[in-house]
Amino acid sequence: MKWKRSERLVDMTHYLLEHPHQLIPLTYFAELYNSAKSSISEDLAIVKGTFEERGIGELVTVPGASGGVKYIPTVSDDEVRETIQILISELSKSDRLLPGGYLFMTDLLGNPELMNRVGKVFASIFKDQQIDAIMTVATKGISIAHSIARHLNVPVVVVRRDSKVTEGSTVSINYVSGSSRRIQTMVLSKRSMKSGQRVLITDDFMKVGGTMNGMKNLLEEFDCTLGGIAVLVEAEHAGETLVDDYYSLVKLHSVNEKERTIQLSEGNYFSKERL
Amino acid sequence: MKWKRSERLVDMTHYLLEHPHQLIPLTYFAELYNSAKSSISEDLAIVKGTFEERGIGELVTVPGASGGVKYIPTVSDDEVRETIQILISELSKSDRLLPGGYLFMTDLLGNPELMNRVGKVFASIFKDQQIDAIMTVATKGISIAHSIARHLNVPVVVVRRDSKVTEGSTVSINYVSGSSRRIQTMVLSKRSMKSGQRVLITDDFMKVGGTMNGMKNLLEEFDCTLGGIAVLVEAEHAGETLVDDYYSLVKLHSVNEKERTIQLSEGNYFSKERL
Repeated sequence: MKWKRSERLVDMTHYLLEHPHQLIPLTYFAELYNSAKSSISEDLAIVKGTFEERGIGELVTVPGASGGVKYIPTVSDDEVRETIQILISELSKSDRLLPGGYLFMTDLLGNPELMNRVGKVFASIFKDQQIDAIMTVATKGISIAHSIARHLNVPVVVVRRDSKVTEGSTVSINYVSGSSRRIQTMVLSKRSMKSGQRVLITDDFMKVGGTMNGMKNLLEEFDCTLGGIAVLVEAEHAGETLVDDYYSLVKLHSVNEKERTIQLSEGNYFSKERL
Repeated sequence: MKWKRSERLVDMTHYLLEHPHQLIPLTYFAELYNSAKSSISEDLAIVKGTFEERGIGELVTVPGASGGVKYIPTVSDDEVRETIQILISELSKSDRLLPGGYLFMTDLLGNPELMNRVGKVFASIFKDQQIDAIMTVATKGISIAHSIARHLNVPVVVVRRDSKVTEGSTVSINYVSGSSRRIQTMVLSKRSMKSGQRVLITDDFMKVGGTMNGMKNLLEEFDCTLGGIAVLVEAEHAGETLVDDYYSLVKLHSVNEKERTIQLSEGNYFSKERL
């Protein structure tokens, strides 16, 4: 069967979107569509142009015999601003205020379209860096971690608070929770992570950074290195933050439980210097 | 700016794939691309043909003033078989055997490409049914739940074992864990789920079905109804299963800790009658 260009474009777009950060040899498409490589190159030029024009992502062509094409998800600054605005407008709703000044955000973390956006934003920041895995701590950061992972095509590693029989042998560390100053435990299955990896850690919320710092220490136990830190919401607080090189989308300044108001602003996404 | 058909096809494919189960009015595309509705209809016919030919999904056209087009993710039987084969070949590796006869599967649940496939398979089963949310219990089922949710465009609701201050007020139930016959607790934040919803429940593993049954009971507390049950791996066991109307991809028959062998087969996906 001979494919028409229009059909090839639709199928190719789907295939590329489903395989981010993977080098696809031109011969793969040429054989699949029974078309000349020159036609495939012309197709890819159209896809590339449209992806760039519409802010879908980059299409990188690697020349040579072992070359091919790679789709790199990216987001435009406008899309990041829109995502941040959605988050701020959602999070400032006064009925999110919980006793103790906490903010209810579980529904946002369960919203697949919003999480898809958030994951693409963070994946876009780290697109040119070597990231081998995404690490988070159960439970709330898992949806963010998976969305980043999907856009970077790397596995997710979930740290737990307790060890479970289905995890096999584990490595456990103690760390000091930043805000409550309590000693807590973090557990990771030995089989979950190979040594020598460069790992991006993520969570939904960060105040002093105790949990993030705990994950950093856990990375060392696995002979892995920190590739970056991505936080959905960081909270302002007195004193020093335990980690400094992080990206956040939203910053929580203060809550007033009596007036039921929540002060939020843009996180450091646009103000932080890029590596 | 006037768009060429080739560019429209690429952008439209991306947009449709990112908005599954959402009705998109033809005017949306007509205005975006500054094109006549008749041209958009022709474009969509090409997308539809290619999506069907390649097993990407269905493109349903709703006629009339309030009509539009909707992308419904589906998978071909061949793709389901391939997914099941990947799962079986991975899960039969003897180094997955843990003390007590448990199987290590955490790495598979952290693999974004595999989870994407699994989620699409389950979303495909329930594509014509009213599903308002996906429910799972922390931690291991979360990646499956999110992948199904993304393909059905509905939120994820995560049940916990313990209540947390960031969840606000909660509803808690006790249930009997099927295999260990122990009383366990399940907690869901009141704000996590509205009443009157039809909910698909999912988990990575099911033996007697105690956890699934617990989630079913929790649904009743929220005046919600069961929309279906999706399990990655079901385990054979003596006696009755507490839930019967479920779909599974893989069935675990037995493990032999001494010989280090694992007996697996296809789950009930192909043998179960469709609703």
